[in-house]
Amino acid sequence: MSPFPVVFALYPRITQLDFTGPAEVLSRLPGARVVLASTTGGALPADGGIVFANVVPLSQVKECALLCVPGGFGCAAAMEDLVYLDNVRRLAAQARYVTSVCTGSLLLGAAGLLRGKRAACHWAFRELLPLFGAIPDPARVVRDGNLITGGGVTAGIDLALTVMNEIAGRDYAETVQLGIEYAPQPPFASGRPEEARAQVVAAARAWLDAVWPDRLAVARRAGAALPTGNA
Amino acid sequence: MSPFPVVFALYPRITQLDFTGPAEVLSRLPGARVVLASTTGGALPADGGIVFANVVPLSQVKECALLCVPGGFGCAAAMEDLVYLDNVRRLAAQARYVTSVCTGSLLLGAAGLLRGKRAACHWAFRELLPLFGAIPDPARVVRDGNLITGGGVTAGIDLALTVMNEIAGRDYAETVQLGIEYAPQPPFASGRPEEARAQVVAAARAWLDAVWPDRLAVARRAGAALPTGNA
Repeated sequence: MSPFPVVFALYPRITQLDFTGPAEVLSRLPGARVVLASTTGGALPADGGIVFANVVPLSQVKECALLCVPGGFGCAAAMEDLVYLDNVRRLAAQARYVTSVCTGSLLLGAAGLLRGKRAACHWAFRELLPLFGAIPDPARVVRDGNLITGGGVTAGIDLALTVMNEIAGRDYAETVQLGIEYAPQPPFASGRPEEARAQVVAAARAWLDAVWPDRLAVARRAGAALPTGNA
Repeated sequence: MSPFPVVFALYPRITQLDFTGPAEVLSRLPGARVVLASTTGGALPADGGIVFANVVPLSQVKECALLCVPGGFGCAAAMEDLVYLDNVRRLAAQARYVTSVCTGSLLLGAAGLLRGKRAACHWAFRELLPLFGAIPDPARVVRDGNLITGGGVTAGIDLALTVMNEIAGRDYAETVQLGIEYAPQPPFASGRPEEARAQVVAAARAWLDAVWPDRLAVARRAGAALPTGNA
């Protein structure tokens, strides 16, 4: 029995920084226990070459104070994994906070948890949110009730500190921020499409299109599979 | 044979964000292959509850284009692990870039690689660098020849983008920065002791002192164990 189980609902081909960032922050919450879980459990390969061990099957996770659904190209397959989506719904129902990072919000959407809710997403995938009845919000961290969603990848760190402030108070959150020396100095002003050079935005879009060309079709299918009602 | 093996030299009780941040960036380098290695190999438990799988024994790593030594409280033990330090020296000798994040620079120091070099470190541990003949530099990312060192934990992301700019050019690095939506918005201005409130700095120092009280003695011992000469 942990006072504050923090459950990351993973899947193969996840973007690891989407959850390793928040995990680094949230593991410092008083009483926190970080739980990595996936549909099958076992070893979980992330995109980029890192493999995570000791991942538990989602069905075995009984307690969840904070649920975090990270993003990644594997979300295309996870969007059609009914066991994954069922467990996300079950854990979300008991969690004090339901969170996502990057394209993880598409999975919350596919689980039917975003209807009528404002949500963030990776900038290049934000336009898919309405297929799940969600209202896209371009802010880096978006709060709607107990639902807190973040933008692409690195937004998870800002999201986690925001949640920590809520749970443990400002002094505590500031101390953790100082502990991880989070005074970022990005080398370029290219972290958002609004500030990046046009050729950089085009290159990023071309890369994303190459890796996940059929995202609109996948998200449409997942959106259409949602039961109607309580929208 | 990978064109660009990126080797992270790990040890138990490492701070995982020290290397998961850079790994997320550097895995996107053309030809990159991320290699997690430790003295024994096998499963590696980081501080905070995440366990890494498929970690290879350092002695089996034959090729290294970029070496990264991350930080964490486990660096106290790693500083006295002669197999670890020998392998760090061996891999550094062939690497195009030798890098560290956070207290990882203390390990580069214990391996004898920082003599007369400017280096960064986590703000609370920077004062230990002279014990290894290094010149502490408070910048977030510090370059001295092919040695590129970063400040605490999250500085690894800035460091990795800096290295990527060097290797793959500015357009490429900016595109990756946009891909991971790295336009950070820290919720507080508390990421450096110079900007954090006094009570927050005191709380962070108290926490670090509680977790690693004998760091000065450990670093002194490791510094004294360095062979003399070519300082």
